[in-house]
Amino acid sequence: MIIILKQNADKESVEKLRKNITARGLTIHESIGEFAGIIGVVGDTSKIDMSTFASLDCVNDIKRVSEPYKAANRKFHPYDTMVNVAGRITGEGHFTVMAGPCSVESEEQIIEVANRVKLAGATMLRGGAYKPRSSPYAFQGLKGDGIDLLLKAKAITGLPIVTEITNIGNIDLFSDVDIIQVGARNMQNFDLLYELGHSDKTILLKRGLCSTIEEWLMSVEYILSGGNNNVILCERGIRTYENATRNTLDISAVPIIKRLTHLPVIVDPSHATGKTWLVDPLTKAAISAGADGVMIEVHNNPSCALCDGAQSITPDDFDSIMKEVKRRVLFEGKVLS
Amino acid sequence: MIIILKQNADKESVEKLRKNITARGLTIHESIGEFAGIIGVVGDTSKIDMSTFASLDCVNDIKRVSEPYKAANRKFHPYDTMVNVAGRITGEGHFTVMAGPCSVESEEQIIEVANRVKLAGATMLRGGAYKPRSSPYAFQGLKGDGIDLLLKAKAITGLPIVTEITNIGNIDLFSDVDIIQVGARNMQNFDLLYELGHSDKTILLKRGLCSTIEEWLMSVEYILSGGNNNVILCERGIRTYENATRNTLDISAVPIIKRLTHLPVIVDPSHATGKTWLVDPLTKAAISAGADGVMIEVHNNPSCALCDGAQSITPDDFDSIMKEVKRRVLFEGKVLS
Amino acid sequence: MIIILKQNADKESVEKLRKNITARGLTIHESIGEFAGIIGVVGDTSKIDMSTFASLDCVNDIKRVSEPYKAANRKFHPYDTMVNVAGRITGEGHFTVMAGPCSVESEEQIIEVANRVKLAGATMLRGGAYKPRSSPYAFQGLKGDGIDLLLKAKAITGLPIVTEITNIGNIDLFSDVDIIQVGARNMQNFDLLYELGHSDKTILLKRGLCSTIEEWLMSVEYILSGGNNNVILCERGIRTYENATRNTLDISAVPIIKRLTHLPVIVDPSHATGKTWLVDPLTKAAISAGADGVMIEVHNNPSCALCDGAQSITPDDFDSIMKEVKRRVLFEGKVLS
Amino acid sequence: MIIILKQNADKESVEKLRKNITARGLTIHESIGEFAGIIGVVGDTSKIDMSTFASLDCVNDIKRVSEPYKAANRKFHPYDTMVNVAGRITGEGHFTVMAGPCSVESEEQIIEVANRVKLAGATMLRGGAYKPRSSPYAFQGLKGDGIDLLLKAKAITGLPIVTEITNIGNIDLFSDVDIIQVGARNMQNFDLLYELGHSDKTILLKRGLCSTIEEWLMSVEYILSGGNNNVILCERGIRTYENATRNTLDISAVPIIKRLTHLPVIVDPSHATGKTWLVDPLTKAAISAGADGVMIEVHNNPSCALCDGAQSITPDDFDSIMKEVKRRVLFEGKVLS
Repeated sequence: MIIILKQNADKESVEKLRKNITARGLTIHESIGEFAGIIGVVGDTSKIDMSTFASLDCVNDIKRVSEPYKAANRKFHPYDTMVNVAGRITGEGHFTVMAGPCSVESEEQIIEVANRVKLAGATMLRGGAYKPRSSPYAFQGLKGDGIDLLLKAKAITGLPIVTEITNIGNIDLFSDVDIIQVGARNMQNFDLLYELGHSDKTILLKRGLCSTIEEWLMSVEYILSGGNNNVILCERGIRTYENATRNTLDISAVPIIKRLTHLPVIVDPSHATGKTWLVDPLTKAAISAGADGVMIEVHNNPSCALCDGAQSITPDDFDSIMKEVKRRVLFEGKVLS
Repeated sequence: MIIILKQNADKESVEKLRKNITARGLTIHESIGEFAGIIGVVGDTSKIDMSTFASLDCVNDIKRVSEPYKAANRKFHPYDTMVNVAGRITGEGHFTVMAGPCSVESEEQIIEVANRVKLAGATMLRGGAYKPRSSPYAFQGLKGDGIDLLLKAKAITGLPIVTEITNIGNIDLFSDVDIIQVGARNMQNFDLLYELGHSDKTILLKRGLCSTIEEWLMSVEYILSGGNNNVILCERGIRTYENATRNTLDISAVPIIKRLTHLPVIVDPSHATGKTWLVDPLTKAAISAGADGVMIEVHNNPSCALCDGAQSITPDDFDSIMKEVKRRVLFEGKVLS
Repeated sequence: MIIILKQNADKESVEKLRKNITARGLTIHESIGEFAGIIGVVGDTSKIDMSTFASLDCVNDIKRVSEPYKAANRKFHPYDTMVNVAGRITGEGHFTVMAGPCSVESEEQIIEVANRVKLAGATMLRGGAYKPRSSPYAFQGLKGDGIDLLLKAKAITGLPIVTEITNIGNIDLFSDVDIIQVGARNMQNFDLLYELGHSDKTILLKRGLCSTIEEWLMSVEYILSGGNNNVILCERGIRTYENATRNTLDISAVPIIKRLTHLPVIVDPSHATGKTWLVDPLTKAAISAGADGVMIEVHNNPSCALCDGAQSITPDDFDSIMKEVKRRVLFEGKVLS
Repeated sequence: MIIILKQNADKESVEKLRKNITARGLTIHESIGEFAGIIGVVGDTSKIDMSTFASLDCVNDIKRVSEPYKAANRKFHPYDTMVNVAGRITGEGHFTVMAGPCSVESEEQIIEVANRVKLAGATMLRGGAYKPRSSPYAFQGLKGDGIDLLLKAKAITGLPIVTEITNIGNIDLFSDVDIIQVGARNMQNFDLLYELGHSDKTILLKRGLCSTIEEWLMSVEYILSGGNNNVILCERGIRTYENATRNTLDISAVPIIKRLTHLPVIVDPSHATGKTWLVDPLTKAAISAGADGVMIEVHNNPSCALCDGAQSITPDDFDSIMKEVKRRVLFEGKVLS
């Protein structure tokens, strides 16, 4: 950590700062220049709230030199993590396609969609049982019954299932779920992350709607630091001023995550844009940018969907997209998994 | 709800839309113009996910005519709600000043700060016991012990206390807390909101870091629709591209909330900017813009604070600010409460 | 245009609205429903400022039904426009690679870079002569001399040249320039756009740093409506809260532009991210998303560059990227041009 | 300037960096710590593009220690600048009210509005003659005729006039204009700023729609460095994700500008929000936050306005607002000017 002092910093205040640093078991390297003094802080600064120093009169600015995340950091873990879910690999050389409806609505619906996406080549089935909805009056999902229906679809198709948790109190219902999704709105629900970090489930952690990549990685750190290394990240669009799409897909996040961490990252083009006709080009872009997979909403009857129909493609459209996905995954030297 | 059809919309698709609407018990008013047809949907559309219609080929766009929030809506509740906490009123003609440290750190600290802010004129004591921190390695608050210390400070000063909940599992520890705060990161933790809506506690609902005002009001609706009308809103800055301040205080939110709803709204200049020297001018601006109160971070030793020291002012600075607050509250024809 | 009236709209105000509309030569289709009245306005509404109606008491909201841009609109011009610059095509089936330094600094520099990018397969040479710099103290480009040096490089390599204009007063100096670039900061310099619309030069119009896609297309409209159809768009990242990259590349803009307009669109991964190591993955993503080309900064000595060294790749790195570009352009069934 | 080296930085690359720095006439202070080396650069770094160093392999990050703006910087100019326009002062102890229509439409209109705002207490008349419009099909202003009409209104009322320039080519028409406004879209039209910096006119520089405060001050620097110190800044809202208002008024910008610079800053609540009913509360907030004035759109017939009718208040509403403005300016110990 580097603390940049103000020009003409008050000596008393600087002395207070020095004591404050050393009292935390850290050591100091000073360099006082013509324009500004600099205090380099050496030691484990990951537990220090930088803003506490900022309140001192003598401090101009503070800068971290090392990333605040450790367990996710590629510097300390140079090799790619491959996540194995029921024999299917996500990461390094593999490409995962999670497909299915926004929410599970009925046995008929989920079985039909599951069969169709399986046939088209999807490698996992997604579907929402607990739906976080911005309106208390909107359909909130079939909850426990939804998970039961997903498990039926899994039994029939053999596809591992991915579904969202919104409350740690329901964790017991997720014991047969293959991947537990933490949605964008819960990316900083630290109590939930902490508990999942102490479980042995694979976690799909979506990026928060207005989270920086660093904040996202700190949320990963909550899970990894609990001992659970089975984490897949999912870029799903961030909130910007542009309203041509529901969110703005931050495609750069894919190569950035691959560089900063050792974890797999997938892309959700359906939520990112809210428009069915953008799923195809953004899936292609995700593959080329190096993503380890995609998550696509497919509904057998989008206009009757109980939520987010506008972004769900039909099984026929999914068939076409999968033909392209297969060609392109091969082109990148990867295998569907 | 108004559905705008595409030019040359396919008749079959329009017929499908009509059936889809009437199947939900709604009625239709059609107006087919030269450029575009419009279908007005009449009935209770608050439970309809607009995006499901958007997936039909014939639909160009969809527009809500009425706000999706009911219980918070001033249209249906024209009079200002006054929230009474331990005899102190927030709302309509009153001005509330919640002050105290970001987090409770020790008995000595919280008692000293409580005495100082009481003396200066604060009307409530704030302090964090459960701290949601973006890093798992950072100080997470004294938790239950923190609440006990707040209750001691309350016993000594008589100030009602405000503290944040992060997990509904801890609700029992909040039984003597006067106002339960829901922080920005939990503004869309709907399970938490639902439970608080079924309690009888006063809730301070902070705006999410990147939430629209409408989303914020939908979160209020989760609480009100459960039967709990004791809600105070708190504007605390939104995330923008500007980095001169930690967040951008959306001062317009104050008059907008007063116009759209019947609920009191306060401003948190400390979190909004992360800079102590902005607390004074933004507190003044909040008063003039019509806010029902402010929430200010005060710490007896900011540079030793365990979190957010940079935004905490000293008790001496708080004294000066309160002198101005008193003059200005009087000028606006309100009373401190 | 659709005007949505308030519930219980005042009759007098509605009558005023009707007169206001018909006075502009437009006709009215009314539909008064239970919840809201709607007035459909038929005729050429492209010249009407919607906000003038919004000031009437009776108006709840106003919505355009048709896009405000005409000449760029694919609805009226269904076939892809191919822009021909010195025999090289941009658009439909072709892929253009514009490469070169941020700014022209010396004859030696521009000739060396031009030769290297030509060898690697670039199809056009970019280089800044007039540099809009946020600081008045920064290097502002070689101006007229820079254009002369670009023309020398063109004479040697045969590559058409692309360079930015910042002031219409300099237009005479651009007579031998193949493509005139309008930078992000001038995207809404309407006087400049107007003049360029009345020239016969090919224009590369970069997206403004915080412009919506619709605003960008309205700026295109300034050029097209003057009679100049030779326009190429360039997505170069938008400003968001995320600071891991300098801007956020809005990859969705590529398929959106292709759908809404008939014009070619390219991507600038260098400016979009400000990081050299992101040029490779984002170039790949751009190709797959359907872009008609890319614009890449290449400098023979990035650390001595007079501007934006951090985002300039070396000629060696450009060689590697071009190998991938060639494979991928072929894979997409396009040809380099 | 501080350059933070990477851990285990390559020695050759560091040596290259040292030479690069000293070749620019700057001196070096090194401090190599356990975790990171730091190179402090001493000398006039204002003309250095920081990103050129960033391209070197050994560099982790670069940080400016001193602000890049000099002439506007309060550090070097501690006393408030008061701008005198035709005997009226803006800044330090004075409060300026610029009022008038978005655009000048006719002699009758501008005279009527000018008389009304004068009567109510406005101190200057604003009105647009050259209107930058996002659509080429929209009303673009009366141009030279508009300026003539403003001068007539000035002759009748005695109010100094403020109007926008969009093209330096028209500067001769502005010779009798009291304050030349540079609009948000031209805040980074550096050619225009440069020319205005070499004129002796008072300049009102609006903040760009997505400009940081630092970028805004660098644009000010273009004017001041040319020798023209007569600059007033105007905060007019920034672009964010929130759509309840057209832009988000960044009220914090007022105290920040007052602290960082010696220049006066005013607020434009009309453009910031696009809603008439927000003009009153935001004007009050601006006064309390320390603004040196406001700029308010007033139109005698908002629903017939040729642009931006939705944000223009009526003369009657302006009367009410001015009553409040007078009370509050007095309360702050200032005088209308």
